[in-house]
Amino acid sequence: MVSSMNIKDEHGIMFILSAPSGAGKTTLCRMAVDHFDKMQHSVSYTTREPREGENDGRDYNFVSQHTFKEMLDRGEFLEWAEVHGYLYGTSKDDIERLLREGVDAILDVDVQGARQIKSKGKEGVYIFIAPPSLNSCRERIEKRGVNSKDEIEKRLSSAKKELAEALWYDYIIINDTLDNAFNKLRSIIIAEKNRAFRMKPYLPEN
Amino acid sequence: MVSSMNIKDEHGIMFILSAPSGAGKTTLCRMAVDHFDKMQHSVSYTTREPREGENDGRDYNFVSQHTFKEMLDRGEFLEWAEVHGYLYGTSKDDIERLLREGVDAILDVDVQGARQIKSKGKEGVYIFIAPPSLNSCRERIEKRGVNSKDEIEKRLSSAKKELAEALWYDYIIINDTLDNAFNKLRSIIIAEKNRAFRMKPYLPEN
Repeated sequence: MVSSMNIKDEHGIMFILSAPSGAGKTTLCRMAVDHFDKMQHSVSYTTREPREGENDGRDYNFVSQHTFKEMLDRGEFLEWAEVHGYLYGTSKDDIERLLREGVDAILDVDVQGARQIKSKGKEGVYIFIAPPSLNSCRERIEKRGVNSKDEIEKRLSSAKKELAEALWYDYIIINDTLDNAFNKLRSIIIAEKNRAFRMKPYLPEN
Repeated sequence: MVSSMNIKDEHGIMFILSAPSGAGKTTLCRMAVDHFDKMQHSVSYTTREPREGENDGRDYNFVSQHTFKEMLDRGEFLEWAEVHGYLYGTSKDDIERLLREGVDAILDVDVQGARQIKSKGKEGVYIFIAPPSLNSCRERIEKRGVNSKDEIEKRLSSAKKELAEALWYDYIIINDTLDNAFNKLRSIIIAEKNRAFRMKPYLPEN
């Protein structure tokens, strides 16, 4: 059913997910890619080191500072940002190729990045993943192996700032449990595929 | 999960479903009411005779032409229409009471009615249920016991006119199978509950 929706699609939809540190957006992106046909996670470029278990080309494209800056100079990023001292960016070409092929692209970008895409007037569905409480946010940051009290406070304080931006997004998902949050994300994706302006080709001929 | 969404809701959401004759919107409304807590189907008023199996107060409020016109004179209808010679209307009070109590209201109105509600600037989610083809539309009309060739043609021709209006709705659901259509309706309802402007009360305090 989900796949048959795309038969006549000329253009994929861009879904932009962002969330404060530790709200669990990466897992949700992967679940969406697994669930829907013709949906791909756009792999970001980053200058930070891979964490244990992360694969180059799957989780991120890990590049040097030099390569990143060259791409930046050539205007190849749809959005880019410096987060906690590292550079992150989304390749414009990667996304446009997916959308042209009728594949939905799901992007996992921070609030600054989402803002850049939005300010360029790109049509997309903007989804903010919020933690159910600031406490749960702290727990997830700690679980990630961030131990220094200063670093935890720094991330929590930026999480608070980011939460204040949630209201300009199209949707807000409270990530209380992964199942609930994914049920909502899945629903938003299905709903957006059924927006009237996207359904014109599917209406019976008059 | 679905019910806990409503704890802090101050105001319900109005979902307006319309469809050409025989696209199956009434069944979908009932399924939504069964599935979601705090969702009620607004029962329309009509001057037509009850069909077999229809109950007064559940399927419609069956009223006389005289009573209907009195209500009309008192401005009690959010929308009203004459369809195939009968009057149909939705009580403004019924809907407003539901929404104030934090109950979502699902309305089952024809295209003329939906247009009236929209033109009054009422905030709501407008959903068009379309048949997968004009043939399937004809079959459903015939199954309803409409036998006269003229009457079938009349209804089909108004279905075609109504299909042309689908594009001003927020969403279009192709009713190919009931399961698919309900999955989409359910997704739209969940997605709308998670619209950013409705989620403000649920964000963690900063």
